[in-house]
Amino acid sequence: MNIWFATNNGHKKEELQAILNTSLKIPSQEGYAFNPEETGDTFCENALIKARELHKLLGNNEPVIADDSGLNVDALGGRPGVLSARYGMENGQKLTSDQQNILLLDELGDSPLRSARFVCSMVLFYSNDRFFVIQETLEGEIVKKSEMRGDGGFGYDPVFLIPQFGRTLAELSVEEKNFLSHRGKAGKIIANLLKNNG
Amino acid sequence: MNIWFATNNGHKKEELQAILNTSLKIPSQEGYAFNPEETGDTFCENALIKARELHKLLGNNEPVIADDSGLNVDALGGRPGVLSARYGMENGQKLTSDQQNILLLDELGDSPLRSARFVCSMVLFYSNDRFFVIQETLEGEIVKKSEMRGDGGFGYDPVFLIPQFGRTLAELSVEEKNFLSHRGKAGKIIANLLKNNG
Repeated sequence: MNIWFATNNGHKKEELQAILNTSLKIPSQEGYAFNPEETGDTFCENALIKARELHKLLGNNEPVIADDSGLNVDALGGRPGVLSARYGMENGQKLTSDQQNILLLDELGDSPLRSARFVCSMVLFYSNDRFFVIQETLEGEIVKKSEMRGDGGFGYDPVFLIPQFGRTLAELSVEEKNFLSHRGKAGKIIANLLKNNG
Repeated sequence: MNIWFATNNGHKKEELQAILNTSLKIPSQEGYAFNPEETGDTFCENALIKARELHKLLGNNEPVIADDSGLNVDALGGRPGVLSARYGMENGQKLTSDQQNILLLDELGDSPLRSARFVCSMVLFYSNDRFFVIQETLEGEIVKKSEMRGDGGFGYDPVFLIPQFGRTLAELSVEEKNFLSHRGKAGKIIANLLKNNG
């Protein structure tokens, strides 16, 4: 039985395969044109939109996994949140991760409130009637502008401090990150659900 | 730590306590006025509405469980679905379960397509950022009008046949029903999540 992941990004597939310890298929590598419109107001809605869309495209009962994630910064009222990937986007032009990180640090400025959390909503979808949603978090703090650091990970990882480690997410190894992270925690539960409730 | 269930119905509380094998608190028995508006288009949305509302009312981080369920009949395009409790309602006046069952059997008539499924969306909610949704099903068939039977259960149970048992859901014992049912299956997974990921 195939297990599908609702993304076109081969890098994301590799990452989730490592977390789930299972082989995944993605539509772009199997000849499917998959371009869901992520119009949801929440991570959960967007993950369900992607899962439903791929389920419909496949037209069978093979399990589909989908996820949506982002960064909620308390001092910004939860922004960039569900718009994390599009943060700072103007005229349809996306910023690079570096540009987004600088923008975020500038917007936060010297605010003493630095708390933030990564959120990942991951869906295991069998049909419109039967599916599971696991939404997990990773709590941390946004560093000061002078303290952005680390070469690992991607996106907002270099500005996200894990206080008990004294390191940013970009300074952790892949194994450390997958153990601690919002996506790692959600994936671990999804792997169990896949195994025990398929 | 208290575990809350987002219902005002003491009978539903007893049923879920048996499934989860744990003690639950419900708002009506603890002095809270809990009247969520179930305006969602799906079971999942309605369960999340109830969970969010109770979480907000409590104002703490105690886990909240909420559920929404109903009956999807294929020959009726999935109806009554999310409106199962309100099926046949006119002028704000709800029908009794018996009246709803007769209405459903009349609407289906002699249709050869009898397949249907109960669906239960159950949520374990810790915060707006961290929650789990388990949506499970019980597949079956709607009996012919002359074959409605059984005194157990409630709602649509007397018209819902479990083909491999040759019995309606209303003819099963509570233990049999909780083992097989959409709510029983979802509850079993929620109980595990509560135990291992609290």
